Formats: sequence, C-alpha cells, structure tokens
Amino acid sequence: MGRLQEAALELYAERGFDQTTAAQIAARAGLTERTFFRHYADKREVLFGGSAELQDQIVQAVAEAPQGLGALDAVGHGLQAAASLLGQSRRDLTAKRQAVIAANPELRERELSKLATYAAAVADALRRRGVGNPQAALAAEAGMTVLRVGLEDWANDDRDRELTAVLEEGLAQLRAVAAGT
Amino acid sequence: MGRLQEAALELYAERGFDQTTAAQIAARAGLTERTFFRHYADKREVLFGGSAELQDQIVQAVAEAPQGLGALDAVGHGLQAAASLLGQSRRDLTAKRQAVIAANPELRERELSKLATYAAAVADALRRRGVGNPQAALAAEAGMTVLRVGLEDWANDDRDRELTAVLEEGLAQLRAVAAGT
Repeated sequence: MGRLQEAALELYAERGFDQTTAAQIAARAGLTERTFFRHYADKREVLFGGSAELQDQIVQAVAEAPQGLGALDAVGHGLQAAASLLGQSRRDLTAKRQAVIAANPELRERELSKLATYAAAVADALRRRGVGNPQAALAAEAGMTVLRVGLEDWANDDRDRELTAVLEEGLAQLRAVAAGT
Repeated sequence: MGRLQEAALELYAERGFDQTTAAQIAARAGLTERTFFRHYADKREVLFGGSAELQDQIVQAVAEAPQGLGALDAVGHGLQAAASLLGQSRRDLTAKRQAVIAANPELRERELSKLATYAAAVADALRRRGVGNPQAALAAEAGMTVLRVGLEDWANDDRDRELTAVLEEGLAQLRAVAAGT
C-alpha cells in the first residue's frame, strides 16, 4: 500500500471521508496534489483502486483451478488468489478502509457493486468450466460473501492470523452452515 | 401489485426508466399525478416500495422458526415468507422490474443495498437465536443470494413454477454446491 493510500485512510478515519480533500492527502503523504492526481482520479478511487486487478486475479485462479474440482472448490482457489493480493496490505489500514466505507452509504453501495461485479465474473468463469445455472451464480456469490465476511474478520481480529487461513476457515464455515451443523 | 406499479413497469420497459415521468405513469394508469405522489415519493420508489414490509416478514419468520433448527434452515423459513409475499406479484411484471433495474447502474446499486440490508437484519435475527459469528452472516448472506438468484429464475422461467418451490430448490442447490457435489 503506497504512501498516498496510507495518508488517505488515516485522514478519512480522523476527520471523515467527506471532510478530507485530495490536497490534504497529498500534504500528509509529503507529496504534491499533482502527484495525487497522477495516481488517482479522485479521493474515492483511493479506496477502490486495484479492484480490476483483484477481479482479474480471482477470475484467473478460478479458471486455472484443476479440472474436476467442484464449483465451490474452484472458487476457493479464487479466494486464495485474493488473499495473496490483499494479505499484503496492513491489517490496520484494511480495518480503517472498511470503517470509512461502512460509515458512508454511497461508498457502501460502491463496495457492494464491486463485489457483485466480482461475483458475476466468477460465475462466468465457472460456466466456462462447465458449471450449470444456478449453481455457478450460487457458488460465486457464496464465495464473495466468504471474502467480504473474512476480510472484516481478519481486519478486526487481534490474533494476527494470515488472510489465507481466515478465508480457508470461512469457506469451511460456509460449508458447515450449509450442511446444517 | 397496484395499477400504478403495473403502469410504471410497462413504461420503464417500453421507453426506459430515465425517459419516464410520474405524470406519464399516472396517465397510463388512468389516475392523476397527485394520486401518484400520494402513493410514491418518486418514480424510483415504485420499484422499491414494499421493501420494509418484505424485510419485516423475512426477519419475523426467521425469528419464529422452530428452536433447534440450523441457521440455514431458519433462513429457509424467511425465504418462504418472502415467497408468500413476492409470489403474489405477476411473474411478467417481476421480470420487467428486474430488467429495468439491471439496465440502470444506480438502480442496481440500490437493489444491492436493499439486499445487504435484509441480510444484515437476518444475521441479527440469527444472532438473537444464538447463532455465532461469522455463521450468522454467512447463513444470512447465502439466503439472500438464494432469494436474488431464485427471483430471477422464477421471473424468467416459462415453466410457471411457484416461487415457493423455486426458492426451496435454490436452497437445496446451495447446499449441494457447498457439499461439493
């Protein structure tokens, strides 16, 4: 996570998203406003930049999962790819990001919209693997739920676990819930 | 579904949501614009009116499900309550509603936001039943996925099935997906 992103998340947490300007973020990071706008179109993009890359990594991992795996196991490969990418971020900054989004309805809608887009892309990847409907949609959406719930757990849990392990456990918990235990 | 809602959905499908006015909806329904605004705050509300009632019915059914049921089975009771309410609508109008929402990013975000709100309320109801975290969130979100995917199936499927049966089957398919079969 770059200096600009750290500075932005700190300021959003301190004074609120609406009250923070790009100029303030740049100043906090020790950079110029021009540098800010070379990296991000606006202050919202700081929160959602990288989502195209995340989606690509998830979809690629699902597509390349060993043939013969069940739909949800293939989605599990996508979750591990997400964990590799997102697990590099500092836990406390991820928690700050989530708190900022949770506090702002517009950002919350955008976050949900991103997750729905990932789910649709994962469902497409599953269909290309021969998974039927509605199984592809159900497995993809369930996987993105595990990602969302898992990221929250991970960011707010002091035990300092690896995101990989948290998502693996989340998938196992989903299976247990579905099995009715 | 009332005359205003039917008229609105027909017009949204014919000319698009953005190109339709409240006055046109009222005229199509053979009512005055004033009557329109006595029922709906704006033309968006025609698509999302009734969502508070739907949420209440789902949550109440989850809360009142027999004790000792697993989390997802309790959510299944909520889905059946949703089916009772939503299954009264005409299938073709539900399909029109979904097409309008799918075609408009802003409406799509609002729909996702409503579903996320239902899921959060269902998760709360599960916690009050003694379900732990993250199981409550996982079961609630999975249930709302079944609702969303099932409604789409139902609205666009010519076999004219009962929504109750479609959601029951959806829940069974989710279980099968989670079991890896």
